[in-house]
Amino acid sequence: MKTRAAVAWQAGQPLTIEELDLEGPRAGEVLVEIKATGICHTDEYTLSGADPEGLFPAVLGHEGAGIVVDVGPGVSSLKPGDHVIPLYTPECRQCKFCLSRKTNLCQAIRLTQGRGLMPDGTSRFSLKGQPILHYMGTSTFSNYIVAPEIAMAKIRSDAPFDTVCYIGCGVTTGIGAVIWTAKVEPGANVVVFGLGGIGLNVIQGAKMAGAGKIVGVDLNPKREAMARRFGMTHFLNPKEHENIVDAIVQLTDGGADYSFECIGNTTTMRQALECCHKGWGQSVIIGVAEAGKEIATRPFQLVTGRVWKGSAFGGARGRTDVPKIVDWYMEHKINIDDLITHRLPLQDINKGFELMRAGESIRSVVVY
Amino acid sequence: MKTRAAVAWQAGQPLTIEELDLEGPRAGEVLVEIKATGICHTDEYTLSGADPEGLFPAVLGHEGAGIVVDVGPGVSSLKPGDHVIPLYTPECRQCKFCLSRKTNLCQAIRLTQGRGLMPDGTSRFSLKGQPILHYMGTSTFSNYIVAPEIAMAKIRSDAPFDTVCYIGCGVTTGIGAVIWTAKVEPGANVVVFGLGGIGLNVIQGAKMAGAGKIVGVDLNPKREAMARRFGMTHFLNPKEHENIVDAIVQLTDGGADYSFECIGNTTTMRQALECCHKGWGQSVIIGVAEAGKEIATRPFQLVTGRVWKGSAFGGARGRTDVPKIVDWYMEHKINIDDLITHRLPLQDINKGFELMRAGESIRSVVVY
Repeated sequence: MKTRAAVAWQAGQPLTIEELDLEGPRAGEVLVEIKATGICHTDEYTLSGADPEGLFPAVLGHEGAGIVVDVGPGVSSLKPGDHVIPLYTPECRQCKFCLSRKTNLCQAIRLTQGRGLMPDGTSRFSLKGQPILHYMGTSTFSNYIVAPEIAMAKIRSDAPFDTVCYIGCGVTTGIGAVIWTAKVEPGANVVVFGLGGIGLNVIQGAKMAGAGKIVGVDLNPKREAMARRFGMTHFLNPKEHENIVDAIVQLTDGGADYSFECIGNTTTMRQALECCHKGWGQSVIIGVAEAGKEIATRPFQLVTGRVWKGSAFGGARGRTDVPKIVDWYMEHKINIDDLITHRLPLQDINKGFELMRAGESIRSVVVY
Repeated sequence: MKTRAAVAWQAGQPLTIEELDLEGPRAGEVLVEIKATGICHTDEYTLSGADPEGLFPAVLGHEGAGIVVDVGPGVSSLKPGDHVIPLYTPECRQCKFCLSRKTNLCQAIRLTQGRGLMPDGTSRFSLKGQPILHYMGTSTFSNYIVAPEIAMAKIRSDAPFDTVCYIGCGVTTGIGAVIWTAKVEPGANVVVFGLGGIGLNVIQGAKMAGAGKIVGVDLNPKREAMARRFGMTHFLNPKEHENIVDAIVQLTDGGADYSFECIGNTTTMRQALECCHKGWGQSVIIGVAEAGKEIATRPFQLVTGRVWKGSAFGGARGRTDVPKIVDWYMEHKINIDDLITHRLPLQDINKGFELMRAGESIRSVVVY
């Protein structure tokens, strides 16, 4: 069949809209009509060429929602008509990682996914016979995609695609880091570095978990109002404090019980650790740092009880936990609507990237 | 009263044996006759001058055991005749830290302890009217000491002083890091960097916890035999492997579930983190690094599920947990006897330091 898709031909170039050939689903795969997709910093990271593992030409996009159109042989958990969110972190429920009960980082299809291919080592996309690569196993910048059954979260059918698509990455990454990675408990003081899309979702996750003080840290004073709407109780602008770590320690009476780095900057990662409370403060790295950059601290920070960890996809097991977050949204426990600042048709997708680069959007969504 | 003590007059100089004046216990304090004390690397760290917070003149020593001789006003949990182990990490059971249930780092007397003083801001030791400082709140290189009630673990009276004194630091630090900090579960693969006194105690803690593979890493092949006696199942000498991290990952089928750094070297701290299993491996820093040294890694190591933490005094709450370890020793669940390689009278204490510097002892104990 044919599908309209935005193709990234090479790093640093705008996407172009193409009519691609799409092969149908093979064993264990499903064909999905993507109804909406967010544009995320990770797409931009790859498109810019900064990601050393980025491959071209490819169909980017990893934050979508849609409807199952067809299923390949052996698929038992999905049928045509099911509403789904594609998962760049699959959940096979059979690998060492899934069975460990300690991580969400299913490794069942990691190698082929990293090479832009389906699990059988081939691509389903092509143009005039030239294969076009998949991306993160999702490629939601295509109107139709083929992906493995284990990489699809089945969600309720009354959820609107143009908002829940954001649960495919940003919402889950932020809320999940609070709930599943850090396991923030009621009354705990939380500090959030970076009040972009991820940071705002960390804030609403912290509010949902009953956190005490929820302190936001950002250089941009314009971010304060929106963050307060999501549950932030205190705002600190590093420009206004000689030492932001000291300011946080003072404000939280000894330091953060949990801190979250949502920027991807190794300097703020260190600050996020060092502002934690002696004895038990935990710092969670969410942001993706530039290739080659390293984090550092004095080991004394850890020996005196601080814990340094990270979170990928919010620690969420995609098929198990993503449907729960969709429920929370439908039950008005979390707010996604206010985070979707722009809606665009596919042909304007490059405008969505520009809005993100200019810091003008929280999230732009392409609606097919 | 008078007490014989080894005094550290200044950094880098041998200790001298002096007859000091010792004031009796004030409110909340107890007088203890020290029967035996270990000589630990931390004493050497301070004596060498490398510790920027080291103060002189002082009575060093923090790994003792003895008998309560007298108690000051208000002391309710101890009486003359009780056998005790002095605690450099006290347990007041009333401060924010004790009540957090998340840390053993009681802060009740931290400021005065760090300045070499009793909680009321004065010293009980003096020589010809010149005050001599306490050290770590314990000063077990004195035959008699005064210390706060909250810094004494009451232990069973049938335990021999010249072995259980080691529970005052090294044994608890190693075994506790496994049991209370890392919470190693049966079957988990454990990797231990450094097979000195702390490393051997980590190994026997891992064995006690039912660990699977217990891998020891040390440059010194002579350490292998003793470590195997304590429960090590595999030995790796970094000199024999091009990349010790890869060698560990291969041996443990993906990486350590828990690793412990018992050297105090920031390079091995990084290796200990990076040899951990993706998704859940936890690395615990026990060793004390040189002042000013920093640890570093790529944040990706944490984002993919590894956790970096530290342990002080094995995460043990001194008054609550130290008596348990004494019981384990008396019940032959752990081996301390083979770790005490030398016994010396107080006048030979400098020889004990020399044996440690030369790597000839695991633990030397001064018996009064």
